[in-house]
Amino acid sequence: VTDIRLALTGFGNVGRGVAQLLHDNEEEYRRSYGVRLLLSGVADRGGAAVSPDGLDPADLLRAKNEHGTVAAARGGQTGLAGGEFLDRTKAAVLLEGASTNFTDAEPGIGYALAALDRGMDVVLASKGALVLDFDRLMEQARRTARRILYSGTTGAPIPILELADRALVGVTIEALEGIVNATTNKILTEMADGASYEQGVRAAQDAGVAETDPTLDVDGWDAAAKAVILGRSLFHAPLTLDDVDRTGIRSITTAELEAAGAAGESYKLIARIWREGNGVRASVGPELRRANDALGRLSGTQMGVVFKTDLLGDVACTVQDTGGVPTALTVLRDVINLARERGWAR
Amino acid sequence: VTDIRLALTGFGNVGRGVAQLLHDNEEEYRRSYGVRLLLSGVADRGGAAVSPDGLDPADLLRAKNEHGTVAAARGGQTGLAGGEFLDRTKAAVLLEGASTNFTDAEPGIGYALAALDRGMDVVLASKGALVLDFDRLMEQARRTARRILYSGTTGAPIPILELADRALVGVTIEALEGIVNATTNKILTEMADGASYEQGVRAAQDAGVAETDPTLDVDGWDAAAKAVILGRSLFHAPLTLDDVDRTGIRSITTAELEAAGAAGESYKLIARIWREGNGVRASVGPELRRANDALGRLSGTQMGVVFKTDLLGDVACTVQDTGGVPTALTVLRDVINLARERGWAR
Repeated sequence: VTDIRLALTGFGNVGRGVAQLLHDNEEEYRRSYGVRLLLSGVADRGGAAVSPDGLDPADLLRAKNEHGTVAAARGGQTGLAGGEFLDRTKAAVLLEGASTNFTDAEPGIGYALAALDRGMDVVLASKGALVLDFDRLMEQARRTARRILYSGTTGAPIPILELADRALVGVTIEALEGIVNATTNKILTEMADGASYEQGVRAAQDAGVAETDPTLDVDGWDAAAKAVILGRSLFHAPLTLDDVDRTGIRSITTAELEAAGAAGESYKLIARIWREGNGVRASVGPELRRANDALGRLSGTQMGVVFKTDLLGDVACTVQDTGGVPTALTVLRDVINLARERGWAR
Repeated sequence: VTDIRLALTGFGNVGRGVAQLLHDNEEEYRRSYGVRLLLSGVADRGGAAVSPDGLDPADLLRAKNEHGTVAAARGGQTGLAGGEFLDRTKAAVLLEGASTNFTDAEPGIGYALAALDRGMDVVLASKGALVLDFDRLMEQARRTARRILYSGTTGAPIPILELADRALVGVTIEALEGIVNATTNKILTEMADGASYEQGVRAAQDAGVAETDPTLDVDGWDAAAKAVILGRSLFHAPLTLDDVDRTGIRSITTAELEAAGAAGESYKLIARIWREGNGVRASVGPELRRANDALGRLSGTQMGVVFKTDLLGDVACTVQDTGGVPTALTVLRDVINLARERGWAR
């Protein structure tokens, strides 16, 4: 059994989910993969807690819940952050899970670059750094011979990157389309059943998939960010958010959704990436899909993608976002797959 | 660029597909994965051809086509087989693609064990050895510190094993159900459109997915064998073919299929593996599914599986078997994924 020290930045939904999974499944990770995952440091806006021997996930969750910051946990202190925090964790892997920021990608980008400089591998759960600075991150990873994994940023928990990497070997991806945002799919599903837009938003919030402010979801920004990351990762195309032809779901009415449903169809917010000429294009927008279509059949918090390939035709993968846990699960999935590459895990 | 020598046993559909892909995509494998895949030996019932510097795939295909055996190719000779063949190939990996044999698993099992003994890794495309001697094979692999990959035997080209290994990390698979046989799905689809059973069989043969004798497919043996391998691999259960509650599709009539279609449903041959008490059970049989169901929507030569999981709900993956090439593609997928583990490929 190999110990793997993890430093975690951000202790919102994803970070707390990681702590909860480590608490619940420590023995499972040890038995199945031969590793002991130690949370040796957690930083949030209020400070940080550090212990190279491993923090107690339950204590971190209690401190956050009662005091609003992990600085109140055992091993905690206010003011600790950045490179000093990373150094003191003695971590092998940084899990970057702070809130996504599409303005300057901080604090994610700063933490990621600092971790690579210190010889840490990096698992990203927030999208800002990848959307704004993909090339710089990957170049830094090459230079430091470290790895950056980010399967939680492209429509978690759909295993898009894993499928592309391990299953579509020797296959060319000509296009990709998907429902990569659970919030909008939940809202559209509720509205097709007669709910108003506002009722749909509340249902998505109750299901644990929508933020208090659903703007990034309903206007398509979240799906567009995922399309940018997928375009860069799978199509090696220098896409930016501005390149994505983006339409949200605000203009669709309950009446339109009900009428579509009566005809055996439904509107879905589809993210799409495709090759055109020598370039790659991306779009996000509502599309009318049939109920027996690979994506049209997905309702509520179900999500999925279809790879259009040369040798295998349509390859589809669909999952259900049960809210909260899935992204945390993908973070630990990245940790295990990384540990396998490094020879730490089986 | 690392050279990887491959020995291939069997030169039927799968073996010829491997040769064709190596011929067509040599440059792609080099560029994308940093490896040069050399076919250093091929054996069929008529003899073998060997060249440690790499045989010419086009010459092998020509010899097989014109003379019925690779023994007629450059580097070929009759009578060469078994351990002597393997030794002379100097291969790092055996690709075992002889016809599946559920009686004594030969020649697959003999070749696989001999290759492991010689320090070769093994990629299996035929199911016999896995169905009849799973534990013996895996024990031999452990003892020799070699790997056995077999993603082409569980319903190629559905990436079932890759998904379980890389995507369902930290997730418990509680059950698995799937359409893992393209022939029967094609027959059932044709019959639902009014074709007779015989017409359905011919359509499956024309689509390149059915053998001349479709008995193994239509009586559920092929799907049952896949269920056995999946049960052993993913559920660690000592299943045998006798343990699978098996029903084929011969008793379903065109009238029943048409009636189901009129009601928005269809019969599908479903393989299923599930936990029950402390054990694991498996079945293969026709089931009535709705058209918007993850498996019910699959028609013609489409195939797919649904993992029932604890943390991610239903995880579905569907593909299209385009006949011939897909299994060969999975063999080379296994080679690349193996080469990555060994540090030969990126």
